[in-house]
Amino acid sequence: MAADSRPQGPGRGGDVLSAPERAHRVVIVGGGFGGLHAARGLRGADVEITLIDRRNFHLFQPLSYQVATGALSPGEVAYPLRAVFKRNRNVRVLLAEIAGFDLRRREVVLRSVGDLPTPEPVPYDTLIVAAGSHYSYFGHDEWRAHAAEVKSLESALTVRSRILAAFEAAELERDPHRRAEWLTFAVVGAGPTGVEMAGQIAELARDSLRGDFRTADPGSGRILLIEAGDRVLTGFPPSLSAKAERSLRRLGVTPVLASTVVDVDGTGVTLQDADDATRRIPARTVVWAAGVTASGLAGQLAELTGAEKDRAGRVTVEADLTLPGHPEVFALGDMVRVRGRDGTAITFPGVAPVAIQQGRYVAKAARARLRGGAAPPFRYHDKGNLATIGRAAAVADIKGIKLSGFLAWTTWLLVHLFYLVGFQNRLLVLIRWSISFATRGRGARLITRSADADAGRPAAHLND
Amino acid sequence: MAADSRPQGPGRGGDVLSAPERAHRVVIVGGGFGGLHAARGLRGADVEITLIDRRNFHLFQPLSYQVATGALSPGEVAYPLRAVFKRNRNVRVLLAEIAGFDLRRREVVLRSVGDLPTPEPVPYDTLIVAAGSHYSYFGHDEWRAHAAEVKSLESALTVRSRILAAFEAAELERDPHRRAEWLTFAVVGAGPTGVEMAGQIAELARDSLRGDFRTADPGSGRILLIEAGDRVLTGFPPSLSAKAERSLRRLGVTPVLASTVVDVDGTGVTLQDADDATRRIPARTVVWAAGVTASGLAGQLAELTGAEKDRAGRVTVEADLTLPGHPEVFALGDMVRVRGRDGTAITFPGVAPVAIQQGRYVAKAARARLRGGAAPPFRYHDKGNLATIGRAAAVADIKGIKLSGFLAWTTWLLVHLFYLVGFQNRLLVLIRWSISFATRGRGARLITRSADADAGRPAAHLND
Repeated sequence: MAADSRPQGPGRGGDVLSAPERAHRVVIVGGGFGGLHAARGLRGADVEITLIDRRNFHLFQPLSYQVATGALSPGEVAYPLRAVFKRNRNVRVLLAEIAGFDLRRREVVLRSVGDLPTPEPVPYDTLIVAAGSHYSYFGHDEWRAHAAEVKSLESALTVRSRILAAFEAAELERDPHRRAEWLTFAVVGAGPTGVEMAGQIAELARDSLRGDFRTADPGSGRILLIEAGDRVLTGFPPSLSAKAERSLRRLGVTPVLASTVVDVDGTGVTLQDADDATRRIPARTVVWAAGVTASGLAGQLAELTGAEKDRAGRVTVEADLTLPGHPEVFALGDMVRVRGRDGTAITFPGVAPVAIQQGRYVAKAARARLRGGAAPPFRYHDKGNLATIGRAAAVADIKGIKLSGFLAWTTWLLVHLFYLVGFQNRLLVLIRWSISFATRGRGARLITRSADADAGRPAAHLND
Repeated sequence: MAADSRPQGPGRGGDVLSAPERAHRVVIVGGGFGGLHAARGLRGADVEITLIDRRNFHLFQPLSYQVATGALSPGEVAYPLRAVFKRNRNVRVLLAEIAGFDLRRREVVLRSVGDLPTPEPVPYDTLIVAAGSHYSYFGHDEWRAHAAEVKSLESALTVRSRILAAFEAAELERDPHRRAEWLTFAVVGAGPTGVEMAGQIAELARDSLRGDFRTADPGSGRILLIEAGDRVLTGFPPSLSAKAERSLRRLGVTPVLASTVVDVDGTGVTLQDADDATRRIPARTVVWAAGVTASGLAGQLAELTGAEKDRAGRVTVEADLTLPGHPEVFALGDMVRVRGRDGTAITFPGVAPVAIQQGRYVAKAARARLRGGAAPPFRYHDKGNLATIGRAAAVADIKGIKLSGFLAWTTWLLVHLFYLVGFQNRLLVLIRWSISFATRGRGARLITRSADADAGRPAAHLND
C-alpha cells in the first residue's frame, strides 16, 4: 500500500489524491457499547467499516454481575459481533488485539489473539477508538488474583465459581471459625456494580441456596459492602443512597462505609478507617468493584497527540470527541474526558448510556464530515441513573425524579431488556428472570473450571 | 467413629450391632445419569443419602455437543445437583473427588476439589458407584491436547472456542492453503456423538455463519467424519447407517470410513486404511468422539474385589449390579459389564437410558434389601436407538421399527426435552431450538478464554 495514495483529510470525494472508487475506510476499535453503536450508526453509510475486538462477542456489561451470581448464563448477556453485522456487507469484524496506532501512516497495528494468524496493519481514513476501561485495584495488581471483578465475561465466571465454591467449602469445613470465613463475602466498592453484586450474593445465600446445604447455613453468611465514601451509591442523591442502604440491610448486606482497602490476600481484606486505624476482616471471597482505569490505548493516544491524560489514564478529547490535531481520530466512552466550553475536561460517568450516545454521536459526526459538514459539540443527555439492589428493589434518579422500590425496579428491568442486544437474548433473559422471580431460584449455578486444568488429571475422577 | 458400631450387612433393623435410631447410609459416587436416578429412586426411603461428585452439577451429556457448537448455553444443559435434591432432606451433596474405597471399613476416602477443604472419609452401609467413562484416545493421551472431546461441559466449551476460532483464523489468514487447513474439521469416531458433532459443524459453517465473514467462506469448509468401521453409526442397522450417511453428505460432511487414526498433532491427523497405507490430512480442528474407557474407579473396584476387568477398563458386576462378594456395593453405567445368565459378561451400550435404568434398578434393589428381600436380576429395556444428524434429520431404531427424517428428528427432540432435568432448562432449550430452527442461527457462539489467561495481561487490551 503506497502511503501517498491515501487521502490527507477525513473527507471523501473532494480528496484529489484518493482513488475515486474507494470507499471511505472507518476502523472502529472495541465492540463494547461505544464501538457497537458507532458501527451501527455508520452501517448504512457509504463507508467500509472494520470493527476490531479481541473477543468475538459484545458483552452486555450491565448484566455481567448476574452471570457472576448464577442468575443468567453467559450466552444470555453476550452476543456474537458477527451476528450483529451479518447483513451489513460494509462491516468487517476482525478478531485481534491492538499493538498500536500509526497516526502518520493512518494505520492500526494488530497483534494476534491466541494462536490465530497475525493480521496485517489496517489502514483507515477515520479511526474510532472505544477501548473501555478496567478495574485498577488501586495500583495493587497483585490483589487481582484474590479479588475477581465482574467486568469481563470470563472474570464474571471466575467470580461465579468462587462464590459457589465458597458455599461448598463451608459445607465441607468442620471448624466453625473457618466455616464463617468461607461464608463471609466482601464486595469492594459501593457503586452500582458493588451494590448489585452485594444484593445478589445476599439473595443467593438467603433465598436461592436455602435448603441446599445440610451442614452449613448459607443464610448465616455475612456480606460486607466496603466503600471508601460515607454512603453507598455516591453518584445518586443522598436520599436514594439512604433508601438503597436500607434495602441492602434488609437483604442482609452490611455496608462498611468510610473504609479504604489497604490489603487483599487469599483469606481476607485489611481496611483502614478515617482515623487511620486498620483492621483485618477474614473473608475467603472478595469481589472487586472499585476504581476503574482507562484502557492503555488512551495513554497511547495521549502520547501520540500530546493530549492530556488524567490520573485514571483517560485521554482528553475535543468537544467533538476527536483527538487534538487529529480530526480523523475519535475516542469515546470511559477511556476519555471531553473538553468543555470553558476549556476544562468533563468526566462523564462510566456507564453504558454515555458510551452509547457517544458512539452514535461519532457516527453522525463522521457522516457529517463525509458530506463536507461538521458536527456540533457532543452533548450528553442524562436520562437518569438506575441501580438495582435485589428482588423488586431498586433506586432511580430520572431527571430529578427519585424512584425507589418496585417501580424503580420495573423501570430498571424494562430499560435493561430494551437495550439488550438480540431478540433471542431478550426472550431468554425475560424467561430466566420470570422464573427466578417466581421461584427465587437461579438455574445457572455452575462451578466450571478450565478444561486445561482437567486435561492433565488422572483418569480416576468422576464424570471424566 | 468406632468401626464395630457399623452393621455387618446391608440390612437394617435386623442388625444387632447397629444403633437402632441410625438410618441406613447410602453413599452414591457420581452425579451423572446413573447416580442421579439412583438417588432419586431412594429419596423417599428411610435412608441417609450422600451423593458425591467433583462437579456441582448434573450434565445432560447427550446435549453437550450442542454446547460445543454454540446452539445451547452451558446453563441450559447442566443443572445444580443441590437444586435437584433441595427438598429431600435425606440427600446430602458433597463436592469432592474419590481417593479410594475401603471396602473392609466401608468407607469412601475423599480428596479435595481445588482449594476446598478435604472431607473426612464417608462411611456407608450401601455404596453405589456410577463414575462413568471418558475418552481413551487409543492410549495416546498426548493427542488429547490437540483433539478435544465433548463429554464434559468444560471440554465442550473448549471445542466451541476452537471451532469458532478456526473460522476467525481463516478470516485472518492470507495464504489460501493455510486458510483451507483452518476450514478443515476432522471428527474422529462416527458413533452418535461424532455424527451429531459433524452434522452440527456442517450446519454452523453452511447456515449459521453464512454471511458472517468477509474474506473466508465458511461454506467452503471441509468436515471429515473419520471412522475405523466400514459405515457410520455401527450401533444401528445398516439401512439406517446408509440413510444417516446420505443425510451427512447432503449437509456437506465427508465420511472417511475404514480409516484408523494413528497420529494427531496441532495441524492435522494421520490415517491408516485397511491396506496399512497412511495418509496425512491437514486439519487445524480435531474433535474426538471415539473409544471410551471406564473411570479408574472401575479398576479399583475390580482390584479390591477380584472382579473381572475388560480391555476398556470396565469391571464386571453380578446380575444384580453388585460386586462379587460385596452385596453392599453396587456399580453401574458405562463403567461396568453385567454378568449374564450364562455367566458371560454383557456390555450394554454406553448411553443414558442404560445408566438411568440401572440407577433406578439399584434404588429398587437397595429398597428391597432394606425390607429383607432381594431384587430380580437387572434387565435392560431397550427402548430404541436415536441419533440426530442435523436440522430436521435423524435416525431412530425403536424396537425394530426404523424411522428417519423429520419423524425421527421430532422423536429425538421430544425424548431429549422430556429427560432434560429441570423445568427451566426444558423451557429455555425449547425456545433456543425454536429460534434456531426458524432463523438457522445459534446465539451462544462465544469464544471464551480462561480468566486466568486474561489476568496477567497488560492493560492495553480491549474491553479489559
